[in-house]
Amino acid sequence: MKAGFLQFKPEFGQPAKNSGKVRSLLKDRIFDLIVLPELANSGYLFSDKSELEHCSENPFTGEFTGCLKEICAEKNCHIVSGLCERDGDLFYNSSVLVYPDGRIKVYRKIHLFDSEKKWFAPGNMELEVHEISGKDYRNVKTGMMICFDWIFPETARTLALKGAQIICHPSNLVMQYCQKAMFARALENHVFTITANRIGKESNGGDELTFTGESVILNPKGEYLFKGSAGKEEYAVTDIDPDEALNKFVRPSNNLFDDRRSEFYKL
Amino acid sequence: MKAGFLQFKPEFGQPAKNSGKVRSLLKDRIFDLIVLPELANSGYLFSDKSELEHCSENPFTGEFTGCLKEICAEKNCHIVSGLCERDGDLFYNSSVLVYPDGRIKVYRKIHLFDSEKKWFAPGNMELEVHEISGKDYRNVKTGMMICFDWIFPETARTLALKGAQIICHPSNLVMQYCQKAMFARALENHVFTITANRIGKESNGGDELTFTGESVILNPKGEYLFKGSAGKEEYAVTDIDPDEALNKFVRPSNNLFDDRRSEFYKL
Repeated sequence: MKAGFLQFKPEFGQPAKNSGKVRSLLKDRIFDLIVLPELANSGYLFSDKSELEHCSENPFTGEFTGCLKEICAEKNCHIVSGLCERDGDLFYNSSVLVYPDGRIKVYRKIHLFDSEKKWFAPGNMELEVHEISGKDYRNVKTGMMICFDWIFPETARTLALKGAQIICHPSNLVMQYCQKAMFARALENHVFTITANRIGKESNGGDELTFTGESVILNPKGEYLFKGSAGKEEYAVTDIDPDEALNKFVRPSNNLFDDRRSEFYKL
Repeated sequence: MKAGFLQFKPEFGQPAKNSGKVRSLLKDRIFDLIVLPELANSGYLFSDKSELEHCSENPFTGEFTGCLKEICAEKNCHIVSGLCERDGDLFYNSSVLVYPDGRIKVYRKIHLFDSEKKWFAPGNMELEVHEISGKDYRNVKTGMMICFDWIFPETARTLALKGAQIICHPSNLVMQYCQKAMFARALENHVFTITANRIGKESNGGDELTFTGESVILNPKGEYLFKGSAGKEEYAVTDIDPDEALNKFVRPSNNLFDDRRSEFYKL
């Protein structure tokens, strides 16, 4: 199957512009699964709650996800995207998996980074895997985690133990640690990982952030299939065989999951 | 405190020669904690059980650890070393922490690699941390893991959650994955790690292995304080402040341990 990322700069506070941008960047593209950055509808650096109110949406009825649903239906593909989500009075730093038939699965970031704690409620849903199918791939289990979730090895591990073959990882990274460390996440779990990072700068007067791009796709051996550039818009898709992630053997006598000694783990 | 590794080539089947070598290589050295490779008394590539019987020892009464005890007493230092251990009819791929007063703590490798499963019983003891003290360091918590244990993130995580500030990691690595991935282990747990790998080749007629050296010392930020060479004997010690590992903050509002969401981890 063809899976990869779209690396771009979401415009702060402009969800309609951002969905338009996604539509335009994906226009002539053919893929089965594409991952967009964290908070792709809203941008990142909030200054007050009214900005959140303006940018956020209900993933099942919102305009940004509505646009993603249209793209998925047109292309018979799947999109994972970061989303500034509103649920009643609460906001979540979420990601959505959008199916070609319009179904939507939601994950809410469980490990909030820095000032995100000021704006977002911590994720309150299980880490789950969802099956996706297409013309030449059936029931491929995908999981979602968001940006800073990566530093907690338990996140990718939980998804992998639940069967994830591909971990989709919308990100707004400001350092380059993660892109290097995803090699360990892919290898230790023998899964594909797709980290879709954003580019560009944001400032809100007080703070300024530069996002580091360099989105990465890894295979279950921990090999980099693709590394994006640091500062450019970039669409990248690789041909992967998701069944490679079902094989957890690193040696004929070493299976990474069967060899776990849970009785000695105090986690 | 001064902590580091001794990278060398244990001679297969020659524990007395190996303890002599350790003594000679450490003769004029001043350190507080040094880590030796996995199976430093015996070598690695066994062909039959009689070789294990010949090389292995009881860590509390054996000659190899006896020599380490003498060195630790003379230098008022600590040594962590891989050890081919015998306990009754069973053999373990173990490591020992030797104190200047002659005390010995033992860890038995819980994740055996490849043909080790043929020769060794799997570790049957908890992952534990042990305090070490010297003239300018007090109650520094150290943990031990051995070689392939690294690929299971739960190993280092368990040690770190139990308070380990320094993870001592005797190794006989044949690939270079680990040396690169230890950056993730150090960073995700905010601990010091010392991977002491061996060098040289071994063959037993059928198999031949080349060990990759490149022993590494990392700080809690995931920075490489020292990288050893691929094929040379090497002694390396760095000045570290183990208290740096007590600070689990990566941002004023992000503590790597407090931010864990155990309720969502299914491990």
